[in-house]
Amino acid sequence: MSANERLVKQITPKTEDFSRWYGEIVQKAELADYTPMKGMMVIRPYGYAVWENIQQRLDRRIKALGHVNAYFPLFIPESFLKKEAEHVEGFAPEVAWVTVGGKEELEERLAVRPTSEAVIGPMYSKWIKSWRDLPVLINQWANIVRWEKVTRPFLRTTEFLWQEGHTCHATAEEAEVETLSILTMYKEFCETELAIPVLAGHKTPREKFAGAQMTYAIEALMSDGKALQMGTSHNLGQHFSRAFDIKFEDQSQTLQYVWQTSWGMTTRTIGALIMVHGDDSGLRFPPRIAPVQVVIIPIPFGDWKTTVLPAAQAAAESLRKAGVRVQLDAREEATPGWKFSEYEMRGIPLRIEIGPRDVKNGQAVCVRRDLKTKQAVPLADLAVRVPALLDEIQAVLFDQAGTFLTANTRRVQAYDEFKSVLESSRGFVVSPWCGGAECEDKIKTETMATIRVILPGDDSPQDGPCLCCGKPAVAAAHFARAY
Amino acid sequence: MSANERLVKQITPKTEDFSRWYGEIVQKAELADYTPMKGMMVIRPYGYAVWENIQQRLDRRIKALGHVNAYFPLFIPESFLKKEAEHVEGFAPEVAWVTVGGKEELEERLAVRPTSEAVIGPMYSKWIKSWRDLPVLINQWANIVRWEKVTRPFLRTTEFLWQEGHTCHATAEEAEVETLSILTMYKEFCETELAIPVLAGHKTPREKFAGAQMTYAIEALMSDGKALQMGTSHNLGQHFSRAFDIKFEDQSQTLQYVWQTSWGMTTRTIGALIMVHGDDSGLRFPPRIAPVQVVIIPIPFGDWKTTVLPAAQAAAESLRKAGVRVQLDAREEATPGWKFSEYEMRGIPLRIEIGPRDVKNGQAVCVRRDLKTKQAVPLADLAVRVPALLDEIQAVLFDQAGTFLTANTRRVQAYDEFKSVLESSRGFVVSPWCGGAECEDKIKTETMATIRVILPGDDSPQDGPCLCCGKPAVAAAHFARAY
Repeated sequence: MSANERLVKQITPKTEDFSRWYGEIVQKAELADYTPMKGMMVIRPYGYAVWENIQQRLDRRIKALGHVNAYFPLFIPESFLKKEAEHVEGFAPEVAWVTVGGKEELEERLAVRPTSEAVIGPMYSKWIKSWRDLPVLINQWANIVRWEKVTRPFLRTTEFLWQEGHTCHATAEEAEVETLSILTMYKEFCETELAIPVLAGHKTPREKFAGAQMTYAIEALMSDGKALQMGTSHNLGQHFSRAFDIKFEDQSQTLQYVWQTSWGMTTRTIGALIMVHGDDSGLRFPPRIAPVQVVIIPIPFGDWKTTVLPAAQAAAESLRKAGVRVQLDAREEATPGWKFSEYEMRGIPLRIEIGPRDVKNGQAVCVRRDLKTKQAVPLADLAVRVPALLDEIQAVLFDQAGTFLTANTRRVQAYDEFKSVLESSRGFVVSPWCGGAECEDKIKTETMATIRVILPGDDSPQDGPCLCCGKPAVAAAHFARAY
Repeated sequence: MSANERLVKQITPKTEDFSRWYGEIVQKAELADYTPMKGMMVIRPYGYAVWENIQQRLDRRIKALGHVNAYFPLFIPESFLKKEAEHVEGFAPEVAWVTVGGKEELEERLAVRPTSEAVIGPMYSKWIKSWRDLPVLINQWANIVRWEKVTRPFLRTTEFLWQEGHTCHATAEEAEVETLSILTMYKEFCETELAIPVLAGHKTPREKFAGAQMTYAIEALMSDGKALQMGTSHNLGQHFSRAFDIKFEDQSQTLQYVWQTSWGMTTRTIGALIMVHGDDSGLRFPPRIAPVQVVIIPIPFGDWKTTVLPAAQAAAESLRKAGVRVQLDAREEATPGWKFSEYEMRGIPLRIEIGPRDVKNGQAVCVRRDLKTKQAVPLADLAVRVPALLDEIQAVLFDQAGTFLTANTRRVQAYDEFKSVLESSRGFVVSPWCGGAECEDKIKTETMATIRVILPGDDSPQDGPCLCCGKPAVAAAHFARAY
């Protein structure tokens, strides 16, 4: 820790300037840093530890659904990217191109993958011959490059990390079942691990993945009232199997094109963790995903090194044995007060203070990051009480986010009210929509809101007319301004 | 499984054509596949599962030594790469260059990282201010691109996966301790997990990493007598800290350049697993790293579905509970004979056959992949006996590789004998060397052998004169033809 870091780090209150608050937290909590290359970030060890926890927990779920991991090339020849017309149209503006290899100009330029459908397609075409080869259930953990104009750490960067699933099935029904099963898994993952409630539904044609038949997504509400797409699951139909000639012989010896899906979740989820749970003091990490769940801070006073320190060490050891990710900070060059605000800022769910009087009383003081409440806990009970406290904190963060989501989801029929809600309080606005892309465009231009998602129950003719054009509404859409 | 895969896969014997044997195993065991992009491979699920096991076990060791993971950008501006003169000279011929982003020509072209020293340097320069910030112990798991002319799956590909450690220290001594501690860790990892004995020592200036002060490496001997570099650990001295201005204020308030190390291990290790342990029937995976450790094959006969199958399922369940990675193959469309050779080819360490008579006798037949020996084991004892058998197999593979290494390491004084050994039996040839790069070059041109490593005990004046020029020898060097 350097001299300037030993000062308490001041953060702009999030109510004052949300965007600045976000940027300061990212840097001061050392989650990520800007690099000299525009739009590219470094994920620093504290931020990467969050990603490792996300990876581990998501990977376990992906494998439990029968998928296996593989690794496909970083580069995609331009001619491959062009095989699916909508796909290249959607991604070409965002591609970084390799044109020189070693000392030589390449005959065909290579895209640095903006997504991998077009490099996986030719391999699936080679590997899949018979119905016996199906389903193919492959996932990949990889880096992705998209040449973005406006960037923000974790939320939108030129390079990001993700997992991308790519599956092939014998029937349209199986592909749809897969698409929805992944959507459900993503929702459960966000709610259980990240303590972030999400809405799961489908996108409009305007918002779907370039080349997909139907895109499903999970959307969350950030605490500034803007929506964030947390993950997408695409039913690709036969778009790519036709473009890349991925065929199988079915049980009656007929050649058929396979039905495909693809789906992904990215390092963007770390941005959501910051924006959903953070407060004016900094991060508030849900215990299940927090790199450090508990920090123990001995209070130095008198003969603390022979009394307090051994008690703190014993507490750390007993928590470690109970499976808790614990850190003991016994450094003398920083004061307890500095440490309190530092670890609050870093979002560690639970702080345990142990001073000379606590040791005499055989107790420790537990301070919750979520509610900032204090309670004395007998030292002997820590290994049982702390895991229970962590579960409570996880539940409180999820409940708070759920309450916020509910309070900021409004059903609105009239366009005037729609506009004023978006101006004053943002959030999700659920309104009747005619199904037309023209209305979507007009609403976006006039209010900066897009259709984030249409929930399963909302996909039918509505009582009121379309918010924008007055024609009969075919669905109730969740609109929001979004990241 | 498709129709053509249901035939037993024939492999060229390795004694007949080692290179072809290698290529066939890679493809037929579905470890990797060629792609339409020259020099780029797909790591298929079975190969990637090996990499996941390597990653998990190596990552655990890296963290146990106090390192944390992070993620740095894929792209490096050309001007950064040029800051360390030797570094750019070594890597520039191998770089893939991004020159277009989206629709625009870039003002400065970007290297797709061939290694990350030059993108990490500027960040360390920003982060490190004081002796309190040291040591910095960061590792990264990433993809790397080097524009190679001659490629071979796993051994040398345009893109590969690796981990790269990058550390900063306050003193030269600490950097040297770190470099050697990683070298020791790599050696222990290869021997314990991969069952591959390695030689650990330092490289000559000619063979060192471009920009390093000293490169240490572990080298293994493949079963065709050629050497393979399995991992490297570089003491970078102050080469990069001077180039990138990475300074800290020491305890007496003096500004000093940090001392750095970097070190890496790659997907190449999978190539070594194939070439060290494989035989004419295919792969032989060491149990600790094998994706599947045990395959259970029920022998279908008579009422096998009500007798044999439940016994096989119970055996699988009891092994799974004992922590064994087990697969049960009860498919009826493939014969037991086909399965035997398929799983031999895939290198699964232990096969368990259970037939009607076995069930009557309350036993199973265990067939070891290493020695191809059979033994009957009571069904009730499987959960205890199988883990012990796997340990034995791991030990046998390590012993066999060690015996081969010893038998194929020869101390030779005369250049004629040196040449004839390299022609007839290859292996490591340990010979006196004057320390001159000219002799190294001459020997390489004439024999295709390079100095792979100089072991700690061999780095002193030798009895005989230099193999090549006859001048006094300053070391005994391990020469070999290498991948």
